[in-house]
Order: sequence, then structure tokens, then C-alpha cells
Amino acid sequence: MSIDLNADAGESFGPWGMGRDDQLFPYLTSVNLACGFHAGDPQTMKRSVELAQETSVAVGAHPGFFDRLGFGRRKIAMKPEEIESDIIYQIGALAAFLKVQGMELHHVKPHGALYNQATHDMAFAEAVARAVYNYEPTLPLVLLPGTAMEEAAVMIGTRFVREAFPDRAYLDDGRLAPRHMPGAVISNSTIVAQRAVRMCTEGQVKTLQGQDIKINAETLCLHGDNPAALENAQAVREALTLENINVRAY
Amino acid sequence: MSIDLNADAGESFGPWGMGRDDQLFPYLTSVNLACGFHAGDPQTMKRSVELAQETSVAVGAHPGFFDRLGFGRRKIAMKPEEIESDIIYQIGALAAFLKVQGMELHHVKPHGALYNQATHDMAFAEAVARAVYNYEPTLPLVLLPGTAMEEAAVMIGTRFVREAFPDRAYLDDGRLAPRHMPGAVISNSTIVAQRAVRMCTEGQVKTLQGQDIKINAETLCLHGDNPAALENAQAVREALTLENINVRAY
Amino acid sequence: MSIDLNADAGESFGPWGMGRDDQLFPYLTSVNLACGFHAGDPQTMKRSVELAQETSVAVGAHPGFFDRLGFGRRKIAMKPEEIESDIIYQIGALAAFLKVQGMELHHVKPHGALYNQATHDMAFAEAVARAVYNYEPTLPLVLLPGTAMEEAAVMIGTRFVREAFPDRAYLDDGRLAPRHMPGAVISNSTIVAQRAVRMCTEGQVKTLQGQDIKINAETLCLHGDNPAALENAQAVREALTLENINVRAY
Amino acid sequence: MSIDLNADAGESFGPWGMGRDDQLFPYLTSVNLACGFHAGDPQTMKRSVELAQETSVAVGAHPGFFDRLGFGRRKIAMKPEEIESDIIYQIGALAAFLKVQGMELHHVKPHGALYNQATHDMAFAEAVARAVYNYEPTLPLVLLPGTAMEEAAVMIGTRFVREAFPDRAYLDDGRLAPRHMPGAVISNSTIVAQRAVRMCTEGQVKTLQGQDIKINAETLCLHGDNPAALENAQAVREALTLENINVRAY
Repeated sequence: MSIDLNADAGESFGPWGMGRDDQLFPYLTSVNLACGFHAGDPQTMKRSVELAQETSVAVGAHPGFFDRLGFGRRKIAMKPEEIESDIIYQIGALAAFLKVQGMELHHVKPHGALYNQATHDMAFAEAVARAVYNYEPTLPLVLLPGTAMEEAAVMIGTRFVREAFPDRAYLDDGRLAPRHMPGAVISNSTIVAQRAVRMCTEGQVKTLQGQDIKINAETLCLHGDNPAALENAQAVREALTLENINVRAY
Repeated sequence: MSIDLNADAGESFGPWGMGRDDQLFPYLTSVNLACGFHAGDPQTMKRSVELAQETSVAVGAHPGFFDRLGFGRRKIAMKPEEIESDIIYQIGALAAFLKVQGMELHHVKPHGALYNQATHDMAFAEAVARAVYNYEPTLPLVLLPGTAMEEAAVMIGTRFVREAFPDRAYLDDGRLAPRHMPGAVISNSTIVAQRAVRMCTEGQVKTLQGQDIKINAETLCLHGDNPAALENAQAVREALTLENINVRAY
Repeated sequence: MSIDLNADAGESFGPWGMGRDDQLFPYLTSVNLACGFHAGDPQTMKRSVELAQETSVAVGAHPGFFDRLGFGRRKIAMKPEEIESDIIYQIGALAAFLKVQGMELHHVKPHGALYNQATHDMAFAEAVARAVYNYEPTLPLVLLPGTAMEEAAVMIGTRFVREAFPDRAYLDDGRLAPRHMPGAVISNSTIVAQRAVRMCTEGQVKTLQGQDIKINAETLCLHGDNPAALENAQAVREALTLENINVRAY
Repeated sequence: MSIDLNADAGESFGPWGMGRDDQLFPYLTSVNLACGFHAGDPQTMKRSVELAQETSVAVGAHPGFFDRLGFGRRKIAMKPEEIESDIIYQIGALAAFLKVQGMELHHVKPHGALYNQATHDMAFAEAVARAVYNYEPTLPLVLLPGTAMEEAAVMIGTRFVREAFPDRAYLDDGRLAPRHMPGAVISNSTIVAQRAVRMCTEGQVKTLQGQDIKINAETLCLHGDNPAALENAQAVREALTLENINVRAY
């Protein structure tokens, strides 16, 4: 049994820092690096790629809406062909820094409102899946299973990897509880670690309403912006290791 | 005997058009496409790459300062490592659109103030040459011969290609006459064509002061922003063909 | 009887031109100047204000979404308080150029997707109306009558001015026919002029479906991006003058 | 005897925070707020203005180069008329948020590379002084005495206020020691406070080389990005108060 641990990273912007990537990376097996549209900039991308290399973490592109003030969390009513081009641009920019370091692009995971919109809007989902496929048919797209994104990936033939969120509460229908709901974000690292283990060993998680639902995931996402990010990552990594689950990039 | 004909292109930005690339490309053998920093945007880059494919024109990256209002023509006092990362980012972004079309990146040519600064500022010149080399050691950098840029390329081992400007006047010391000088920009297409032919057949050009100087170039640059751009391109292409000079990408 | 003639203007961006403001302004009595978010930039704003002064045209702010690539025509899912601050910022920036010229800000008219969204989304409409009111309670907001925008302006106490569109087709319910509908944009300047006159003298316009509906407007908007913009403006101005309608800013 | 205490503030950008304005403002009598070009954004400006009102601090505009990645610390080779328009734009944007709160713009102080360039480059200095004067002839420009900026202000008739830097070392010629010099930034708050007091009571400061030079200032600047910013501000405020120096905005 094996599982990947991913987190969004490289989210600083020029003089403004965000996250503690150097402390977080050692607990992860893959990272999703911002590509300069919602966060990140060329120097930050360079340094993040170098840090990933030093800590042996696989690097994926984390494209988002071109909206720094909104951190890519506000939907922009773009046309699918515009989304597709924006994603290709961002993937390429990151891939260049990887090429310079002799590394390979490992995956693509859309950010924020782009990710959310693609879970229920087929036009957005297809634009995302098509961009990844057109760039490289063997490149995996990280997605939320059971959504429009998975449907689009299947339709277009994009490789994909399913992710689950041990530090986020689920609803009975399999969706994530919206952040504004009480209990939506879980910051107790012991609980987060228990949920991560159960996702891997039993393929289940208990919802906010108290029901067990199925979880089918090759990667677990930990939120770097969770105030308990570091503790969570450490606790999850240790708990998985204790259970003899092989923590490694897919 | 063979020569390449290049021009800057893909310089529209969102709703704002610039140049008449569709009419210009058929006379060229290579283009330098803006990469979204001083001009260009993901959709424009996509369309420009497709147009280059349709017209069988080789595509190079044309990175510039991140300064749209100044169109990359105002020097920004960046550190060399910042320049290097900005260039790698832009090269990668363009390379992605080429990859999608099954094309290869042909060369890199810096834009505007970045190009100018690199002709006389070794720190800038090295940053440019190093970025290209680190991205891909076999990728040629288009440069003005006899400048800091050539020196830096030689030092770092970057492949390079020399360019000459048939539509721009030269000074006795081999530099281009600054644009504000009377006669600096040549818009008579017959004269531009004659100069282009002489550059190829005799390796010489007459300066503003009236002296003959040596020209050693594998590519001739035609300015797309010259009001006579189309006529110049047509006249140059025809004149070179009449002289049995093989017009093709290096 | 009097009417104002307005058009969006100042929509160039750095090296990229748009519109022919110098030819259009003489036919207008007010202009809505882009404020640097969807179009326009400090130098363009300065020149547009000077041109307005020379041609005795009243100047309003034309704030839009911060989205140059989309020219402010793509909705961004911003929070009302974010919209409010964005509008205040843009109004202030334009007002400074007017202050330098000894001129006064005449009105505010939102642009593109911000205008459209505010016609049917109360949260957006209130944000717009509140921003204008908070900046200056006597400043008029130009709006489409019978929409959420008018409702919000009434509620908040924002002064407002109703506009009508002689070069755009209406539907029976009083809304503008979407641009993609055949006949939505009217480019025959004789017809545009006749519609303008009838809007003023009879307060009516014939819809796409052929019915007469009421028009209640203090200003008529002419689209600068209509290919027939200049002819339309000239024809409308002449026709209104012939009918002894006083063409002047409200 | 009275003195003003100023600091740069409002330097967050969207999701990225910077500085601890809420803790710093109570020790100050005036602040220089970023206007969205090198830092700051409409929401940040709004909140900073509200905070200044709550803490009874006078608000000045802090315009900078449009260069977020470089935080306005990299010179851009702009033309004087471009600089002038950029400054007017930024002043106006901030003035709008003040107008909404019923406050008045108190002063203008250029930021970073714009400030530095204007100390020795007359074209830049005149552009800055002219922008402030043209916006409002009674508005004071905060400047480094004995520099091109003071000369330009005198020539153009711009009101000005001289500032001194108790937390920065001076050289014998009256210039600030460049930041990369050892000892250039003083973080011992006791020493900073002593220097502030001596600047006010004796009009002198000891240079890095050990000589006493004259200081003639109506405002003392404390750097918010100094790691000891809060302690320094507190120490300076207390020390000045103990000496019965009236700490208030000019």
C-alpha cells in the first residue's frame, strides 16, 4: 500500500512571503507550485524547485486564475480556450525551471477557484483536462474524484490521480464542506493523522453529518495555509509510516 | 550562401492589436515571439505559434522586461539572477505552446531595453547568456556581434547567431544609430533591400557617416513596427531570392 | 428639451492604441474615461483629460474590473466591499488628473461586466451605488433604467442619470439584445440617428421584436468600438441639432 | 519645539501581509501609505486610512515605481512626464479613500528607488516636485534636505518638509550610508532614540566616520521594515516626550 502526500507551495510573491516551505517539504512527497498567476514569481519558482530537489519532493504545476489580489480564489468568467492557454502558459513556465535543474514535471493540479469551478462546470473541467492532455498526454492531473473534473479527464483521455483531504471535513454527498461551515477545516493534528490513516487503510472517512463514506485516493492533500500545517504534515507522515504505509509520490 | 530573415512578432495584448503578423510571416523564416512580459499573452502566443506553423516559420522566444506600459523599452535595474529567472520563465511559457503544436523552440532573442542593455553591460549580458545556456545548451541566442552579449555567450558557452539590421542605420563603430538620430530608421524598401543584399554578398554596409564597415550575420532583422514593415520584408525577400541567396532559418 | 451624448474613451493602454478619441470627442458632450483597471494608464488618462478640456466635453470615470486581457468584460466574483474599494480607487485616480487641469469630475459609469452585473445583481449594484455615494453624494451615476442599478441608487440615495443606446437593439422587456444576437448592434448611422431622435422626442424605441417600448433617458451612449462609431456620432449629433434638441451635458 | 514622526505603511498586497501597522501607528504622527504601484491595493488602502483615522495619524501618499516584485526598489528608466502622471494617479487614488473618510491628504513622499533617484537626478526630482505642485500647490513634499529634490522643490515652488533618519547611519557628506554598509541600519532602540532626540535638540548627528553634521528636519522617519521597528518607534516617542519635544504632524 502506498500514498502520496501533497501540498500547495511556492506561494510567496516578490517581497511578500507565505508559508514555511523549507520546513514543510521534508514531510511531503509532492508539491504543487504556484506559477506566477495567482501567486509565485520567477525567483520564487526557481527557489521552490531547488528546495524540492534538495528535499526529494516531486514537483507539479499549480496553475490558477490571473488574480493575485484574490489569490486565485475568485472565479473569473473566462472562455474555455482562454483557460486552456493560461494553463499551458503556466505549466510551461514551471517546466522551464525544472528543466534547468534536470527535473521532470510530475503532475498538474489547478488552484483555488479554478479547481473548484472545474469540479462542477464541464466547460471549465474540459478546458483543464484538455490543457494538461495537449501539453503532455502522460502527465497526470490531480483531481477530486466523482466530479466533472474526473468525467472530463476520462472523456479526453487525460491521466489523472485522485486526491483526498484529511484536514478538511466531507459532506455525505462526497463534497468538501465549504470553508465557512463550522468544522470544515480540521486543525487537530492527531485527528488529521487518524483520518489520513483510515483513508489509506479502510478507504473511508466520517462526514460532518457522521456517516462513513468511501474515499478512493492516490494522494492526500495537506493545506499549507492551515495554521497547523506543519504539525499536521508531521503527524500524518509519522502515522502513515507507523502503519507501514509507503509514503511516496505516485 | 544562406541567410535567415527574422522579425519581432506576437506583440498584441488582449484586446489591443499590434502589427500585421499574418501578412508579415510569409516573407520571414524566423520570428521572435513576445512571451507575456512586455507584450503578448497566452492566447496571442497560442495564435502566433499556430500562424508560424502554418507559414513554416521558425519560432524563437523574445523575452523582455516585465513592463507593458513601456513595452519593455525602459531599463529596469534588476539583479542578474532576477533577469535570469525572468528569461527562463518566459522561454518556458513559449516552449509550452510549441510543444502542444509539436514544434521545437528555435532560438532566443532578448527584447528592447533588455537587448540594448546586454550589448554593453556584462552583468546583464551574462545573465541573458546563462539563462539560455542553462535552459538548453544547444539553443542559439540571437545577438548583436561585437558587443558584451557576444563576449558573454563565448565565455559561458552559449550558442549564438549574429544579426544585422538592414532597416537601421549603423555608426562607424559598428553600433546602431540611436532611433532619435535623423536617418536612423530606413523606410525606403528599395534601399533596405539593397542593404540586405550587400550585407549578404559583400558582408558590408555603409554607415551614416558614409564609411563601409564589415557585417557578419546569419540573420537579418526587419522591424515589424517600421511603418514600411511589410514592403520592406517583401522587397528584401525578393531581392535576396533574385541574388540566389538561400533564405532559410539557420 | 436637452440630451447628453456619451461614449467610452481613453481605452488605449501603453503602446497599444484603441479608438479615435480625437475625432470622436467633438461630437460628444460627455465621455467615460477608463481608469487603468480594464484599460487606460496614467499617461493615457492625462492626455484624454486634456483632450476633453480642449473639446469642452464633460469627463466621467469609467471604472471596471481589474482585467486588461479581458478588457473588463469577464465577471470576476469579487466581494461587494472589494468592488467598492476598486471603484473608489479608480475614481480618485481620474479625479486627480481633472484636478490638475482645473476640471471637475462629472459622473461615474461602470464598465463592461461590472455594468452588466450591476443591472441584475443587487450586491454588485449596491457596491457600485455606495462607492459613488460615499465618494461624493452629489456625483451622478450613469445607469440603465429599470434595473437593479437604479433600485440600488434609489435605496442608497446616489444621484443617477438614465442612459439609452441608439446603436443597440432592445428586447421587449427593455433589456439590450445580447451582442451575439443578429441585429443587436446597429451600424447604419441613419437608423442610429433616427432612433436617437425618436428616443428624445417621443421617448420610445422599436424593439427587435417590432414593438414600441418607452425610453426615459438623459444621456445617449454611442459605442466607440462600433466600427461606425464616428459616422454614428456625427449623424446623431446632426440629427438632434436639426430637431432643435439641445445637445449638452446634464 | 515640535517634530513629526513618520513611517511607510500600508505595504501589504492582497493575501500577503507586511508590517504591523496597527501596533506601529500609535507611536507615529504621520504615515506614508503605499498607493498600489509598488505595494498596497484598494482594500489595504481603505483599511490603512481607517486605521490612521482611528489612531489620529496624518496620512500622506507614498507613490512608487510600478514594480511589485521589486517593491519599488529597482529604478525604472521612465521619462519625467511618465513619472509625473504615475505620481498624480497614485496621489489621486489615495486621496479618494481619504475623501470617503472625511480626511485630507497631508503630504506626499516618494518611495524607494523613486525617492533615491530624485535625490541626485534633477529630471526625476523635477518630475516629482512638479507632480505634487500641479496636484495641489499647498501640499508638502517630504524630502531629503540638501539634495536635487530640495533644489527642484525650490525651483518649482513646491512646499516641502525635510526629513531625517534616526535609524539610519549618515556619511560625512550628509547622505545616508547605503544599506549594504556595515552599521548602515541601526536597530538598537536606545541609540535610535538618542539620535532622534539630538537631531531635535541640537540639530546634529554623528556620522559613521565619527564627525558631527547638521540635521535640519521637521519630520523623523522610522523604517517599518526594520526588525526593531516597533521598539524603535516606542523608544523614540518616549524619549522625545521626556525631553518635552512636541511630537505632532507638521
